[in-house]
Amino acid sequence: MSDTHSLDALVQALKRLPGVGVKSAQRMAFHLLQHDRPAAQALARALQQATEHVHHCERCHTFTEAQICATCLDERRDHSQLCVVETPADQSALERTGAYRGLYFVLMGKLSPLDGIGPNDLGFKKLFDRACDGVVQEVILATNFTAEGEATAHVISEGLKARGLKPTRLARGVPVGSELEYVDLGTIAHALVDRR
Amino acid sequence: MSDTHSLDALVQALKRLPGVGVKSAQRMAFHLLQHDRPAAQALARALQQATEHVHHCERCHTFTEAQICATCLDERRDHSQLCVVETPADQSALERTGAYRGLYFVLMGKLSPLDGIGPNDLGFKKLFDRACDGVVQEVILATNFTAEGEATAHVISEGLKARGLKPTRLARGVPVGSELEYVDLGTIAHALVDRR
Repeated sequence: MSDTHSLDALVQALKRLPGVGVKSAQRMAFHLLQHDRPAAQALARALQQATEHVHHCERCHTFTEAQICATCLDERRDHSQLCVVETPADQSALERTGAYRGLYFVLMGKLSPLDGIGPNDLGFKKLFDRACDGVVQEVILATNFTAEGEATAHVISEGLKARGLKPTRLARGVPVGSELEYVDLGTIAHALVDRR
Repeated sequence: MSDTHSLDALVQALKRLPGVGVKSAQRMAFHLLQHDRPAAQALARALQQATEHVHHCERCHTFTEAQICATCLDERRDHSQLCVVETPADQSALERTGAYRGLYFVLMGKLSPLDGIGPNDLGFKKLFDRACDGVVQEVILATNFTAEGEATAHVISEGLKARGLKPTRLARGVPVGSELEYVDLGTIAHALVDRR
């Protein structure tokens, strides 16, 4: 066994983080061991705690430590609106707008055949059951406006229509504060078609 | 306590890694919890192991789990040469060249008054004692060719000269494989002065 076995193992473990290559992993390991061992210990504890305690909300699939998350349990929210998002980060962006007071369904991903992620991995069945529970009146599709996000929205939309529901989609258009000259043509074309 | 306390703590802990902001930290936490919990547990273990077992070699200051690192103990190496580098990563780059068979002294940093890092933090006293032990015949300064690395080399060089030793410095010049037209002028000027 090498006399730097633990260090090598740490670099390998850091390399498994998304967006971290071998150079960054070495820099992180060096920084932690040389300058900030308390941070290393805090991170070890946080990882341990999170993998033990964080799981998915039974109703909306977002990360929570409870059986049902605080958002789903909040009686002051509008339980007749259900907003479908890809990730908790997207949910948090919508929350920060302060413009939405309904509930969420977090897919925890998007349809991505190349990565082998299909409808079953994203809990579409559960989403459809939820949408048809009689309480939900409107399903707002807020997946990303990328190719995969659009495909995901399309498949969910078809499934909901087959069950007699009419989902809505976030508006596409010119972003606030932008000048037409610098907006991409696809966006302007969509804004023209969806004019109101 | 929020129902996402562990998740928030994990994001905060990841944010303390160098080069990781809040968005990257969220992405890492999300990836680990959603797609790769074994990686999270492996990282927690690796951090725990490394902070427990990795410390500095008593002779050269590099990271090791033993009292004295394998390089310092290697009898086949030339104990009369001592190469001073800033970090274990620099040491590893020199090792990979295969062109050096002497020993190392790893400063674990560089002089950086703005960050409050002075000669005492880098173990200059220990380096000078080591250089004067009678075994070492040549001290090669291989700190980086940055402003701080050059200043560090200068201070060490002055200290060694005061003790009657004559340190050498890695050659500055045109990198292998480059065309003069595209090399910066400072480098060409140095290559001219140091021509051989």
